[in-house]
Parts: sequence; structure tokens; C-alpha cells
Amino acid sequence: MPRIVQKYGGTSVGDVERIKKVAERIKSTRDSGNELVVVVSARAGVTNELIARAKAVSPHPSERELDQLLAVGEQETCALTAMALHGLGVEAVSYTGAQAGIFTDKVHTKAKIKTINAAPIEKDLKAGRVVIVAGFQGINEDGHVTTFGRGASDLSAIALAAALKADRCEVYTDVDGVYTADPRVVKNARKLEEISYDEMLELASSGSKVMMSRSVEFAKKYNVVFEVRSSFNYNPGTIVKEEVAYMEKVVVRGVAVDKDQAKVIVSNILDKPGSAARVFRALADANVNVDMIVQNVGRHGIANLTFTVPQGDSHKAVKTLEPVLDEIGGGQVAIHEHVAKLSVVGVGMKTHSGVAATLFQTLADAGINIELISTSEIKISIVIDLDRADEAARLAHDAFHLESLGS
Amino acid sequence: MPRIVQKYGGTSVGDVERIKKVAERIKSTRDSGNELVVVVSARAGVTNELIARAKAVSPHPSERELDQLLAVGEQETCALTAMALHGLGVEAVSYTGAQAGIFTDKVHTKAKIKTINAAPIEKDLKAGRVVIVAGFQGINEDGHVTTFGRGASDLSAIALAAALKADRCEVYTDVDGVYTADPRVVKNARKLEEISYDEMLELASSGSKVMMSRSVEFAKKYNVVFEVRSSFNYNPGTIVKEEVAYMEKVVVRGVAVDKDQAKVIVSNILDKPGSAARVFRALADANVNVDMIVQNVGRHGIANLTFTVPQGDSHKAVKTLEPVLDEIGGGQVAIHEHVAKLSVVGVGMKTHSGVAATLFQTLADAGINIELISTSEIKISIVIDLDRADEAARLAHDAFHLESLGS
Repeated sequence: MPRIVQKYGGTSVGDVERIKKVAERIKSTRDSGNELVVVVSARAGVTNELIARAKAVSPHPSERELDQLLAVGEQETCALTAMALHGLGVEAVSYTGAQAGIFTDKVHTKAKIKTINAAPIEKDLKAGRVVIVAGFQGINEDGHVTTFGRGASDLSAIALAAALKADRCEVYTDVDGVYTADPRVVKNARKLEEISYDEMLELASSGSKVMMSRSVEFAKKYNVVFEVRSSFNYNPGTIVKEEVAYMEKVVVRGVAVDKDQAKVIVSNILDKPGSAARVFRALADANVNVDMIVQNVGRHGIANLTFTVPQGDSHKAVKTLEPVLDEIGGGQVAIHEHVAKLSVVGVGMKTHSGVAATLFQTLADAGINIELISTSEIKISIVIDLDRADEAARLAHDAFHLESLGS
Repeated sequence: MPRIVQKYGGTSVGDVERIKKVAERIKSTRDSGNELVVVVSARAGVTNELIARAKAVSPHPSERELDQLLAVGEQETCALTAMALHGLGVEAVSYTGAQAGIFTDKVHTKAKIKTINAAPIEKDLKAGRVVIVAGFQGINEDGHVTTFGRGASDLSAIALAAALKADRCEVYTDVDGVYTADPRVVKNARKLEEISYDEMLELASSGSKVMMSRSVEFAKKYNVVFEVRSSFNYNPGTIVKEEVAYMEKVVVRGVAVDKDQAKVIVSNILDKPGSAARVFRALADANVNVDMIVQNVGRHGIANLTFTVPQGDSHKAVKTLEPVLDEIGGGQVAIHEHVAKLSVVGVGMKTHSGVAATLFQTLADAGINIELISTSEIKISIVIDLDRADEAARLAHDAFHLESLGS
């Protein structure tokens, strides 16, 4: 019997009516003759409510307790989904992350999955039950609840698909799939039929909200093919898989904008070996996610280091760096928050030149100033003024003819 | 160092402000040099909200899933309380029932505690942490979450007090303690300084909402002395303990009214051995809690069996009994829901006669008809018309001079 792992996001299970709709979809997949494991997120908004309550009792809640608290959001929808299935006459059982045997390391709020003990789920599948698993959470070897970070219910689904050797993995969300750009911003954006892990990764890390990078990385590592699709209709979605030859014919696959960015400028530091390493080691230890990094060495061996971080981390970055600057011989640190990152992504870039030139010229013609540039094999990212980010996305989408190219 | 178990009910942790107040109270107990384990309920209203959502997705949710769902209410307050303590600089850690090592049998929604593995809590206490435990829940040997029934967070506290050999157990609620009658109904009701387990048990099973019977039974069994007091002030509460000699000088300790009662009349059954047993076995198997039972044998060996159940169970009782009646040779079953139970309770009754006579005469003088009578060594309960229950409580309170006697 084919084995499918499905994952339903927070808007898909946003209220009891939607949970009942999801149950109907699960039943129909089940009735088509499939074994089924379903991962659910918390109802949309619940995680934010819980965080608000946490901050109201304590300005800096402990991460161990945050995990313990946030895990309840998924546990609720998980049990409700199982009940809704019972209401439709489908045998089902709900599991917390711990009950599902999802063991993680000890890093609270950003835990990594170490191993999954699939035995309990296998047993329930054999008994003919649909297994519903609370996403986003696991347990560490000391018995403490851990969570994987916001949006990481996808990770639960992909990890379970790998551990259970599922034939298919379907990630249900509130969008139809992966688009060449955000359709709310770029009107002629087009849904892609297929996309490679690497492209999806670059899009994810570039602010496309469809999925978290970690989930895609995990899928790539374990070669889990998955489909991103909508729970609100029956349209086919976008298949995410290993790159295939014909994909490279398309130079640029999509344009992404990330507005949750702050630029941190560390200026006037001595350009000596180890300075940059010291800076980024300190940021890593403080769990600050650094994205783009650019370093310029000016006159007299004085260097400027510029990088971007998520806006929520920018003050932590400054606080972390102030003592480090003293240590490495002075310098100043400043934040510029009114920025956005725009990225163009495509595996075809590897073999085509001129993508950067086209992008820079397009923006120059519109008088949009580029503050930072960073490139990878299949991506070019730039930091620009926040106010012009949407316009830049539309211009880039047109420049690369993304509305009409075959996906 | 003295070891205290405290329990805070749903209104005491009803919102973030109250949770912060509770944290202050915990801190002050801790700062006075005590080891402290704290059991918390769900925020007032949360359990009902979860049940409403469960019923909205499925009219008859499975009890296994209900437990999985309802457990999250306490887990939330538990984590929030720990965070609030951190905010006050107190080291604290939150535990679900499972993490606290509370193992139960497999009866979902009404599980019984089998054993507590106190090792993890002992370890945290030794490390100087306050341990916060989610009330009302445990885990069974198959790893499924179980709950103990509504209001059973008290049970968690008392069981932990026994397992941890606590020096004191304090049950914080929204009332000052145990009163001679409901102060909202009987204006001159008086708070009792002390009460015996048996009296408390009879009051609890008689509709006094202060605590669930099972918690008191458990305290009696393990001889856990506990104090019922308010989390909203610092007034002394009521100590519940083994009966002592002087208690018997007081004939009647209190009057309780239970309005959540329905009378079930099974009429015209054959009075042969085993009929009643068959009826009550069926009700027990269906988990219907039967309270007062009266049987009259009429002419020609035809019997009537009357009993009371919680209103929510009355239709289940009828549905359960209909097939049983066919089996035992016919009979009809009817429900009368417009009733209340009034009980007078006191260990002194054992050695004093005339309590029943005084009670019956008082109600007769007021023209209140008694539909059922049931007595124990230390209690007389009667079923009367719902509309006259409060008036009857005031009359009985006066008749036994409860406003003025020493507790």
C-alpha cells in the first residue's frame, strides 16, 4: 500500500471548520488506498498568542520553557484532527513529537532532529490507523520538549517521510505552490511545476515564505521528493526534487524579496587575521543568523565589515559585538533597518553569464541604488532600500521574462 | 529544608497578571526557606474552550484524543508560571504530567494514578529549582496521555505531596476555605478552621464545589494533611485532616446543595435476585456515576429503582439501561431533571440522634417535599425540588445553628 506523509499548515487548520475540511481530504486520500501519516501545525495565530503571553509574564522567557509552551499549539490541532477523522469514521490516533519518537539535540527553540524511532507509528499504520503528528516539536534525551523554530512543521513532515520511507510527501499550505515571484507583488508571477532543492533553498533563504530552508535542506540530504500545494483547492502544486538536466535551460527560476532584514555595519576594525572570525564566532554563539557578508579593506589596514541579519536579531547582534570590538582593537557597530534583500535564483545561472549585468542594469535604469551584493552559483542577492523593493521585484521579473518561460 | 506542595486553580492562574501574582506568592514561600513543588490548573475557561472545539469537530470525541487535547491547558499555565518565576529571578522548571513521572492506569478522562517516579523532581529540588507541574494529567504505560477528570489538579498536588513526603500541602482556590454552607446562598455561612477527611468527602460528593471527592479520598488514604485557602488574600484557610476527638462534639458541620443532579426512575422491574446488580453493572461499565440509590418493592414482586446521576449522564443512563431492561424482563426508565440534592454533614452525627428528625421537620414546616432520602454515618442527603433548594439550605443552616457553633 503506498505510504504518504501530508503536512497541513496553520491556515489550513485555522479553525474547526477548516480542520473538518482537512479531515475530509485525509479521508479521501486514505480511501484511495494509502497509508497515511499527517503532520499538523498550530492553528494560525496561536503560536503568536502564546509568545505574547510568554512575553507578558517575563520579558526574556527561558528557551526551555518557550519550547514547553509553544509545543501545545500543535498538540491541540493534532488531537482535534484525529477527532474530526473519528467523526468521519476513520481510525486515527494523534501523537506529540515525543510520542512520535522524534528525538532531537538539546538546543531549545532551534533543535535539530537526531533520530526518529518509527516503531510506534509503524505499529499504528499496520493496524490501519491514520497517524496524526504534532509538527515543529520533538524531545531530547533528557526528556525536555524541544521545538525546531518557526515554520518547522514542514521539517517534521519531511523527516518522517524519510524515516518511514514514504512514497510521497505533500506539504499543504495556503498557496498553490512555488511562484516565479510573490503574486501579491508581481501580478504576472507564474506557478512552477517543478523546482530543484537548490533553487528552492535559495528562494527560501531569500524571503520566499513558502518553506523554511532547513526543511528543504533536510529533504535534499535524504532525497525526499515533496509537493507544495494548497489545502483550499485540488490544483496540482510544485514538485521539489533533485535537479534534472532540462532545468538548466531556464536561466532564472524566480525572484524573491525578503523584507525582514537589517544591515549591520562594523566599521574601522583593524584588518588583521582572525578579526572577522572572532566577530562571526561571537554571533554564531549568540545564535544570531547572519546572512549576506561583505568586507571592504580601506586605507591603512582599516576594514569595514557589513552583514545582514533578521530584524529581530539586529539588537542582539550589536549587544554581542560591543565587547568583541574592544577585544579586537576598537571599531564601531551600527544598524540600518530600512532595507530589503532581493534575490534572483536559478540553476541555469551556473552556465549562463550576464544575469548579474542584466539585473544591475535594470535597477540602475530605474534609479534604484544597490547597497550590498552577494552571489552564489545559482543566486544573486542585493540589498536595496525597503521602499523600492516591490518595484525592483516587478522590474527583475520582467527583465528575465519569468511570466512566459517554461518552468 | 521544609518541603511544600502548592496547587493553584484555574481562576488563580486565569490570566498573565494573575500568573505573575502567583509567581510572587511562590517566590515568597521559596524565599522563606522552603523546597517547593507547584501544581497548576489550566487558565479558567480554557478546558471548556477546548471541549467546545472538540465537540465542534466531532460530536462524540474519543476519550484518548480528549485527554491528548485537554492536557495542553495545564501545560500552558505550567510553562508560563515557570517563566514568570524566571522573571522574578527564581530558578524554576515546568513539567507535564508525563515528565513529572505521574503514571496512571489506562482509563482515559478518568485515569487513576498508579505510581509516581519522584526522581526527576527530587533532582530539580536538590538543584534549588522550584518545580512546576501541569495538574490533572499523567501518562499510561503505553505512552498515552491520560487525565484524571475535571477538577483533578488537586489530585496531582495531593499525590505529589504523598510521593515527595511533603511537609505541607496547600490548595489555593478562589474561596477562603470550606464554609458551613455556600456563602452566596446562606449569608451567615461561616468558614471552618478544620474539617475531617470524611466530612470533606461528604461535602464534596454533596455538591460543595471546593474539591473533588477523589482528591480528598486520596489524601485520606495517604494521610496527606492539606489546607484549602485563597490565592487572592493571605487569610488562613481550612485544614483538612484525620478526624480528632473534639470534632465529634459538633453534630453538623455543614450544609451542601448539589444542583447538578437528575433523578432516574426505573419502574416495574421484576424483583428477582440480580436485577439491581445488572442495572448498576451496566451503568458502571458505561462510566455513569450513580449517587443516591433507593429501591422499593411494591405488590406482586414488582420493584421500582430510583437513583440520581449528574445531569450530563442522565441520557447516557437511559440509553445504557434500555437494552438491559429487555434482558431482565421489562420495565420502564424515566428521568426527572428538575431536582437538587441537599446534604447535612458532620462526624458528630455518629453519636447524636435526631439530626434527621430536625432536618425533616424543618423542611416539612416550610412545605418542602422530600423525594428521596439517603443516609450515611455522617451525612443525610435528600432530593428536593430544584426551585426550593437554596431556601432549604438556609433553613437547615439555621436549624443546626451553623452560624455560631465552634468549628
